[in-house]
Amino acid sequence: MCVQPIVDVSPTKWHLAHTTWFFENFILVNFLKGYKVFDKDYCYLFNSYYNSVGDRVMRFNRGNMTRPSIEKVFDYRRYVNHHINNLFEYGEQPEWLSLVELGINHEQQHQELLITDIKYILGNNPLFPAFHEFKNINSNIDLRLNFLPVSEGVYSIGHSDENAFCFDNEKGDHKVFLHGFQVSNRLITNGEYIEFINENGYGDFRHWLADGWDWVNENKVTAPLYWKFVEGEWFTYDLSGFIKINPDEPVTHTSFYEADAFARWRGKRLPTEFEWEVASNQYCQKEVADNFLDAGFLKPLRSSGEIQLTGEAWQWTNSAYLPYPFYKMAKGAIGEYNGKFMVNQMVLRGGSCATPKNHYRNTYRNFFQPDKRWQFTGIRLAEHI
Amino acid sequence: MCVQPIVDVSPTKWHLAHTTWFFENFILVNFLKGYKVFDKDYCYLFNSYYNSVGDRVMRFNRGNMTRPSIEKVFDYRRYVNHHINNLFEYGEQPEWLSLVELGINHEQQHQELLITDIKYILGNNPLFPAFHEFKNINSNIDLRLNFLPVSEGVYSIGHSDENAFCFDNEKGDHKVFLHGFQVSNRLITNGEYIEFINENGYGDFRHWLADGWDWVNENKVTAPLYWKFVEGEWFTYDLSGFIKINPDEPVTHTSFYEADAFARWRGKRLPTEFEWEVASNQYCQKEVADNFLDAGFLKPLRSSGEIQLTGEAWQWTNSAYLPYPFYKMAKGAIGEYNGKFMVNQMVLRGGSCATPKNHYRNTYRNFFQPDKRWQFTGIRLAEHI
Amino acid sequence: MCVQPIVDVSPTKWHLAHTTWFFENFILVNFLKGYKVFDKDYCYLFNSYYNSVGDRVMRFNRGNMTRPSIEKVFDYRRYVNHHINNLFEYGEQPEWLSLVELGINHEQQHQELLITDIKYILGNNPLFPAFHEFKNINSNIDLRLNFLPVSEGVYSIGHSDENAFCFDNEKGDHKVFLHGFQVSNRLITNGEYIEFINENGYGDFRHWLADGWDWVNENKVTAPLYWKFVEGEWFTYDLSGFIKINPDEPVTHTSFYEADAFARWRGKRLPTEFEWEVASNQYCQKEVADNFLDAGFLKPLRSSGEIQLTGEAWQWTNSAYLPYPFYKMAKGAIGEYNGKFMVNQMVLRGGSCATPKNHYRNTYRNFFQPDKRWQFTGIRLAEHI
Amino acid sequence: MCVQPIVDVSPTKWHLAHTTWFFENFILVNFLKGYKVFDKDYCYLFNSYYNSVGDRVMRFNRGNMTRPSIEKVFDYRRYVNHHINNLFEYGEQPEWLSLVELGINHEQQHQELLITDIKYILGNNPLFPAFHEFKNINSNIDLRLNFLPVSEGVYSIGHSDENAFCFDNEKGDHKVFLHGFQVSNRLITNGEYIEFINENGYGDFRHWLADGWDWVNENKVTAPLYWKFVEGEWFTYDLSGFIKINPDEPVTHTSFYEADAFARWRGKRLPTEFEWEVASNQYCQKEVADNFLDAGFLKPLRSSGEIQLTGEAWQWTNSAYLPYPFYKMAKGAIGEYNGKFMVNQMVLRGGSCATPKNHYRNTYRNFFQPDKRWQFTGIRLAEHI
Repeated sequence: MCVQPIVDVSPTKWHLAHTTWFFENFILVNFLKGYKVFDKDYCYLFNSYYNSVGDRVMRFNRGNMTRPSIEKVFDYRRYVNHHINNLFEYGEQPEWLSLVELGINHEQQHQELLITDIKYILGNNPLFPAFHEFKNINSNIDLRLNFLPVSEGVYSIGHSDENAFCFDNEKGDHKVFLHGFQVSNRLITNGEYIEFINENGYGDFRHWLADGWDWVNENKVTAPLYWKFVEGEWFTYDLSGFIKINPDEPVTHTSFYEADAFARWRGKRLPTEFEWEVASNQYCQKEVADNFLDAGFLKPLRSSGEIQLTGEAWQWTNSAYLPYPFYKMAKGAIGEYNGKFMVNQMVLRGGSCATPKNHYRNTYRNFFQPDKRWQFTGIRLAEHI
Repeated sequence: MCVQPIVDVSPTKWHLAHTTWFFENFILVNFLKGYKVFDKDYCYLFNSYYNSVGDRVMRFNRGNMTRPSIEKVFDYRRYVNHHINNLFEYGEQPEWLSLVELGINHEQQHQELLITDIKYILGNNPLFPAFHEFKNINSNIDLRLNFLPVSEGVYSIGHSDENAFCFDNEKGDHKVFLHGFQVSNRLITNGEYIEFINENGYGDFRHWLADGWDWVNENKVTAPLYWKFVEGEWFTYDLSGFIKINPDEPVTHTSFYEADAFARWRGKRLPTEFEWEVASNQYCQKEVADNFLDAGFLKPLRSSGEIQLTGEAWQWTNSAYLPYPFYKMAKGAIGEYNGKFMVNQMVLRGGSCATPKNHYRNTYRNFFQPDKRWQFTGIRLAEHI
Repeated sequence: MCVQPIVDVSPTKWHLAHTTWFFENFILVNFLKGYKVFDKDYCYLFNSYYNSVGDRVMRFNRGNMTRPSIEKVFDYRRYVNHHINNLFEYGEQPEWLSLVELGINHEQQHQELLITDIKYILGNNPLFPAFHEFKNINSNIDLRLNFLPVSEGVYSIGHSDENAFCFDNEKGDHKVFLHGFQVSNRLITNGEYIEFINENGYGDFRHWLADGWDWVNENKVTAPLYWKFVEGEWFTYDLSGFIKINPDEPVTHTSFYEADAFARWRGKRLPTEFEWEVASNQYCQKEVADNFLDAGFLKPLRSSGEIQLTGEAWQWTNSAYLPYPFYKMAKGAIGEYNGKFMVNQMVLRGGSCATPKNHYRNTYRNFFQPDKRWQFTGIRLAEHI
Repeated sequence: MCVQPIVDVSPTKWHLAHTTWFFENFILVNFLKGYKVFDKDYCYLFNSYYNSVGDRVMRFNRGNMTRPSIEKVFDYRRYVNHHINNLFEYGEQPEWLSLVELGINHEQQHQELLITDIKYILGNNPLFPAFHEFKNINSNIDLRLNFLPVSEGVYSIGHSDENAFCFDNEKGDHKVFLHGFQVSNRLITNGEYIEFINENGYGDFRHWLADGWDWVNENKVTAPLYWKFVEGEWFTYDLSGFIKINPDEPVTHTSFYEADAFARWRGKRLPTEFEWEVASNQYCQKEVADNFLDAGFLKPLRSSGEIQLTGEAWQWTNSAYLPYPFYKMAKGAIGEYNGKFMVNQMVLRGGSCATPKNHYRNTYRNFFQPDKRWQFTGIRLAEHI
């Protein structure tokens, strides 16, 4: 529970403590009279990136903290949970409620990270240890790739239901003009991606953005993360162990560069996040797939219906992560939650097999640098019509 | 004419040879029957980034090429110019014409780079050699910062005049919806920027994007490029030498991070490239400033009218450099001109004091990584209304 | 037991498995008929640097191996120990015996590394956890620094007792000529080192080798490893916790660069490894100190007698680690034990408070790169007479 | 004359100015009354590594100084030479004389660097420009490799003639004990080195020191510097152009790691610098070779006699660069000349085809890091007898 093989991946113990740290520092310290912090060093140890809260352990050092022990961290969680309950005995203040709701959503984000980080740790261990047992699922639905059309027009984007929770980066509807387009009805499969590999996709500069071509060559990338070519066949690590790749399942653990190159090779492109949101609103009622964290598969599954829109794998869009019109950073530490990351990242949409289902909504904006691959990330195609 | 102090800055000799290389390899080699290349090694030596054309000297090695000599490079230019003239004796083919037009625009881009690269080379020399004589200019126009309003609506963006040249990245008008906004009537001045410095702008994380804050701290940035604080006063290098900063002139050589931080500190934001283009179309008829390369000042000047929109310094927008709807990369080497750079960069608009005047138009999209500062880059503010 | 904060420091679990790996791969696999390896992956997982044995986990990845668990590693140790005992039931072959002896000495080296690596892991944890309880020791012996003279002559160096174990790098006596010299009777103390700090030792280039001066400036070094200046006083981490520095104890956790700079500042120099060995042979019968690992202090102690020669802290010499005359690398994997490291390192002599006492002898050659500080390393002075 | 392709290689213009800087700053500024420096910025611009003299242009920036021009640098040289002549009109002081002698020897060192640095600049230019015309030389002497024996004993090392110039690092004779040994009568040839390559010398870890093996793999080294394998044959750049390798000429531009690996592969070793000096003293009267800079070949030549001891190529020894007994750094700037480099480097002996003949003597100690290859460096073998 302690290791951090790359800077992006945090130790399990750290996730458990940091999510509790959030409740302690943003709620209890400010609102519970007479509250005594569990341990004065924890504010420093488990701060992630909040300059407003003060100094902190450097991110790359999270994996070196053999103390406090995991038992202490569970004590910490119990202590803080107990006091959050206490707080509500004094009544309910809107500010508390909204911070508790944010804290719960924050913890749900870390539930997803727990899965992807554990996968990285075990999937890079030469022994490929299993995390859970494989759950088989049968599906013999036709997998043909179709395209779902959306007509030109002015559309509303963003989250406008004032009674439901959302993050500040998706808040407040605003209008965009979209030229007519269509998006594919399901994610790209492993089998389709293997065709790209077999036709020298990683070796032909014409499919790649310049930064992507540099990334491929500097890192000698020849396949998605976790893939290994053994005696003529492609294998991968999923959380049940080292397995042969199923060509009908969605390809995952691709970077934005790979998703973009694949789309060019197919003569298509990636959707923008606005196209994605509008298409998703228009077609989601037909969706039957439900492969979020709660389903327990922990891997993207073969499409089980006509339309596979959400769950499975976060879909790279061709939109840079930028503020919506009217976006304002909140004052104080909470303002650092999202806004300061709005440069040099690309937006992903749709949720994944590691996202808690009730944490997700169609306005949700995820974002990563274009070379990141350790999340469950996949590919949907688009084109203008 | 030979050195390359940082990878972004190319030697003068290289610029002179590379612009000729463009004409030789994209036109003469393909269309002039019986053409003999000037030197078979030059294709390798002076290719910038065209994978389609073949291998090339690594970019960081441009500054080590003491051969061919500058005399040889001028011979090369004369030889290729001569043959381009010959080509037209055979008549005019539309494909030739369009490539010659592209070649001329390409050379104009390198005329701008010649100025900024020479400035970098001389401005980082401890002797601060002068490149030209300072031309004084008087202006006693009121400098008050006003805002120019634009109302909500659907607007056309991009270049639609089929008879005039433009690059592929600005081609083909498309529609965007804009919420009402206003942009400042002139660029931010050195004096205004010094206030930002004096109020601890570089020391307060709250103004900065996370990547910008890392950039400031890792590089210990405390002022724009070329600025030095000597005995209580700010100095800079302009191409006439090491001089005291004029508070009324536009601040320049700022990164996107600095432009963005300044805007936040002022309670504003940067415009998007779409807002910039629409505002510029709406207000440019009132503009009187004319400080492009041809004016010969080689530095941004104090506003000489009510509205200072173009020329002076490229203005950072808060738009990432991405393809317009319907954008298609051209086939072959020319396709590599722009399209493969559409990730990880921010768009700049407006031209600068180093841009040839007849090379500029209001649909022009310039782009750089957010930490780049060696171009003439400046700041315009915006906000929603 | 799992983490690796810097590449030099290996996880406790890795040390436990690697020392057993040595016995399995160098003895059981080769000599015990019908031996089945405990786990076929362990050869890969726990190989340190033996190219002859095959591929292995990259050194910097040792801290990411959350599997096998520590229980499995203890099973591995029991399994291999059991089979080593079995082997001896078949009789004793000289080759086995010599490899078992090497394996035991190898494990003793890792016993020392266990202590220094655990110290690094805990000493860089913001909580400064204690590893053991502090054992007080009284000593009121006079600490005056004297010098022990040795006269000019031809001396024998190296290990010549064919019946006692030694490593190949110290084997076979050979002759050296030494000009007359003297070495200090005890190690330099924290108090003496603080004088160096207070007199701007780290700020004056004249005391430093050029590489050392670069190292000081690039790493902003201002004191030995683990030292912190808090409210006017120097503190350090020893394995009992975060404590105030005792000026009478030997300074430790200095690099070669620091040891060398201190010596120059004092107008002296470091001894060569040959001077060290000859002086040590001449004066060791008078020695009373006995602070090796077995004493259980786990820190260098104040001199408890007239002469403090061995134990306490490894002493940097001014000798580069090079082969002795007649040195021959052994054939096969064992040849990689020492010989291939004979460049770019400096020799240390004398053993430390973490060295097992019966592992030590006066011909022992330890070696590290000149910037390494996580071992118990200290300073003895010398000069010609 | 301006470029610096790697940090080790300085521009021609810099060498010309720096050697004059030495005379100006160490002699004229201190001893010529009323002397006015040529340009107050030059002290900063042309200081190499003397902290005592003050700040300086960072070493990696030497190649970016397009000003002062080469004409100015020649003016500088004339100005300083003129004043050095003036100084002697006031008489001759021993301190001046000794500094002028040091300055001349310093300039001779830079004469050698001029050749090797120009070779690096031209030899890494894709056009491989010629620097001088090839001078043919005939030699049909037998090239058989023999060994020259030296018997066990105590020998004197170092420079003891008080009337002749030497550097401080070779000063003052001292005694060493040497066990009997022999060294090869000539340098290793290209042909012999090609055998090492053909027998997989670069692919077999057993021949290499661990640091050397890392160096080979990280840099994908497969041959000495400048060598290229073209259509089944080895070519190289010598200063006359790109030529086929002559198997009878000494191999050059090898690193210490390569020299050491070659020696192991042959079952021998490199000599120590003490062995080299003693053998050289004993056998040099028989030497006829004379290939120093003055001979004008600018490349190591085929042995033209029975014994090839000096000139041709600096010979890597297996001695680390360390102070001799009784070595004392001089006070002041001159003390920085040699002493501060005595760590992390290996000693080379013998002079090269780029060393001025009257600059050389058999006690001369050259030194470089073990991965450096741009000097004329070669291989002599040794073994104990």
